[in-house]
Amino acid sequence: MSDTTVKVLGICGSLRDKSFNKATLQAAIELAPSDIRIETATIGDIPLYNADIQAKGFPASVEALGAKVQAADALLLVTPEYNYSVPGVLKNAIDWVSRLPSQPFAGKGVAIMGASPSMLGTARAQYHLRQICVFLDMHPLNRPEVMIAHATTKFDEAGKLRDATARELIGKLLVDLGAWSRLLQTRTRGA
Amino acid sequence: MSDTTVKVLGICGSLRDKSFNKATLQAAIELAPSDIRIETATIGDIPLYNADIQAKGFPASVEALGAKVQAADALLLVTPEYNYSVPGVLKNAIDWVSRLPSQPFAGKGVAIMGASPSMLGTARAQYHLRQICVFLDMHPLNRPEVMIAHATTKFDEAGKLRDATARELIGKLLVDLGAWSRLLQTRTRGA
Amino acid sequence: MSDTTVKVLGICGSLRDKSFNKATLQAAIELAPSDIRIETATIGDIPLYNADIQAKGFPASVEALGAKVQAADALLLVTPEYNYSVPGVLKNAIDWVSRLPSQPFAGKGVAIMGASPSMLGTARAQYHLRQICVFLDMHPLNRPEVMIAHATTKFDEAGKLRDATARELIGKLLVDLGAWSRLLQTRTRGA
Amino acid sequence: MSDTTVKVLGICGSLRDKSFNKATLQAAIELAPSDIRIETATIGDIPLYNADIQAKGFPASVEALGAKVQAADALLLVTPEYNYSVPGVLKNAIDWVSRLPSQPFAGKGVAIMGASPSMLGTARAQYHLRQICVFLDMHPLNRPEVMIAHATTKFDEAGKLRDATARELIGKLLVDLGAWSRLLQTRTRGA
Repeated sequence: MSDTTVKVLGICGSLRDKSFNKATLQAAIELAPSDIRIETATIGDIPLYNADIQAKGFPASVEALGAKVQAADALLLVTPEYNYSVPGVLKNAIDWVSRLPSQPFAGKGVAIMGASPSMLGTARAQYHLRQICVFLDMHPLNRPEVMIAHATTKFDEAGKLRDATARELIGKLLVDLGAWSRLLQTRTRGA
Repeated sequence: MSDTTVKVLGICGSLRDKSFNKATLQAAIELAPSDIRIETATIGDIPLYNADIQAKGFPASVEALGAKVQAADALLLVTPEYNYSVPGVLKNAIDWVSRLPSQPFAGKGVAIMGASPSMLGTARAQYHLRQICVFLDMHPLNRPEVMIAHATTKFDEAGKLRDATARELIGKLLVDLGAWSRLLQTRTRGA
Repeated sequence: MSDTTVKVLGICGSLRDKSFNKATLQAAIELAPSDIRIETATIGDIPLYNADIQAKGFPASVEALGAKVQAADALLLVTPEYNYSVPGVLKNAIDWVSRLPSQPFAGKGVAIMGASPSMLGTARAQYHLRQICVFLDMHPLNRPEVMIAHATTKFDEAGKLRDATARELIGKLLVDLGAWSRLLQTRTRGA
Repeated sequence: MSDTTVKVLGICGSLRDKSFNKATLQAAIELAPSDIRIETATIGDIPLYNADIQAKGFPASVEALGAKVQAADALLLVTPEYNYSVPGVLKNAIDWVSRLPSQPFAGKGVAIMGASPSMLGTARAQYHLRQICVFLDMHPLNRPEVMIAHATTKFDEAGKLRDATARELIGKLLVDLGAWSRLLQTRTRGA
């Protein structure tokens, strides 16, 4: 196995500027071990999925997101929970990229995190996302599960994640994602 | 209980012009018993959900969809399955409307249908949608479950649903939705 | 609609003597409004489901549980969470009773509660149980959702539920179950 | 990576003698590639889970099943679908073995199959089982998904699986399970 840097693409399912989930992704960037580099992609410019549009050609924003997914070794999905499931915004981006002929999600490792004001900390959205990953042929880490509940109490006024437990879990998740991604890459490369 | 017409709002989760699910909704309109009137709403003009936009005021398209939901006695959700779950497009419309102060979904009956080329006929999307309905405080019918599998073989060239079993199930679903909706309305009205 | 007493059958998914969930069911019995009477059934004497045994006749313990379900107007299912789902013990009892020709679950209202040491308070088990209810043709209340998290801190040494919020939610759940059950009974009785 | 034989433990969730799922497991044994050896374990002698019993010591049948799981490199779970979820019988066995201090499930690869008379071929049970695997820290293969629908038409009178597509998928699943298990073993062994 290689010791080179693992390239992780972080995608946040909330478009809100001061989103707890954006702040959680930012915390992950700060907490990443030295052998992991997290880049981010935005999904706010992806149009609503429509197969008739697809038939005329993938939108540039979808192609750009797909290229970023393709270039990444692993994904870090940071999802709010809306109506007990994955936000439509995040699902819509996945729906588009999953149809690119290059199948950029396939075979990659993925870590899932989420923050929510509720006591469940996006659990319901995360389990739906795990089922989505079956079709995408992605491999989610089983643990740690980063579900930041009661989010209104866990970030400071500048939007920085202050909860020590959450920060520790995120750090552990990223270390595990690095190892998991390296392992999965030996599969595709035929180590 | 009243014998007046039950107003049903039909929403299709696919934006594709020749969508199997649009055709399934069309079949429902044809098959509706005389005491049910199905109107439809489109969701292709709903922007991606963003709480910062919401803070400045709900978009007109969201207000319009919310008013249609509010005016309906019951809903008929017709969903394709994308990536083993509800399409982002449909979820996004729900995410917006669920945040309207009027809570237009709450307390209403809902029937779920779907068509898909796969052997599962949108089952996975439908169970996710049922979990979403818990938060929306909607009441889905348990049966019949209308899951039109192998959809490519069940519609004619003009896009008309030809499968006799599916047509029968849809007819039964609508009869049951009428009775279910009338029952639920006695709850809110304090019969 | 009738003002007579609603008969509720409470079933707990844990066989442990000092189970948090048994104590939660006990709290429900204490908190029940005067027009609801909760009886309980045990499931520890139900054998493992085996269709070959069924073919020779339902075991007496299954018949007895089925008769109790049949006699009840509504159910109160109190479930721990094992391995992110419904306990096998509870599911096994459901698997047997669901096969009785009388279909005793069908059409009834159901309220779901659970207690767990984890932060999620049996949420994952409860959503699986809701999916099971679709097949059983039961109608779960949407809310309040009674998920007693961090259960080790919410019961006193005698096993009594002390958490005020949980007690309030249980009381509300039971009031709603009474009204919900009365409504559903008008459906079957053709009010 | 090693080329030695991968030891797979096959567990069937049905106790019925002429179970379609037992026959599916038997087909897997016949179809296994030469570098995979499938042994089976029965779960009909596992008592209903009860933490009070556990406190006095694990039953011998649970210890024996746990030892078989421990000795296996990977698992093959063959599950019927009861009431839209995993059979209580199978879940009960998992509930017991998951509590053994040795944590015999953890880190292992797993393949899931199922057969059912319904059109969904145990899909609902399989997705619940996948969520259970998150807690067990098992790694299910994403594909192929072996969901044998309309099972009454796919086995001959002697109970042999005759469906060519199903047989092909099972063969592919086993080949993939071998490679997946070898990959996961490099993780624990620190290749």
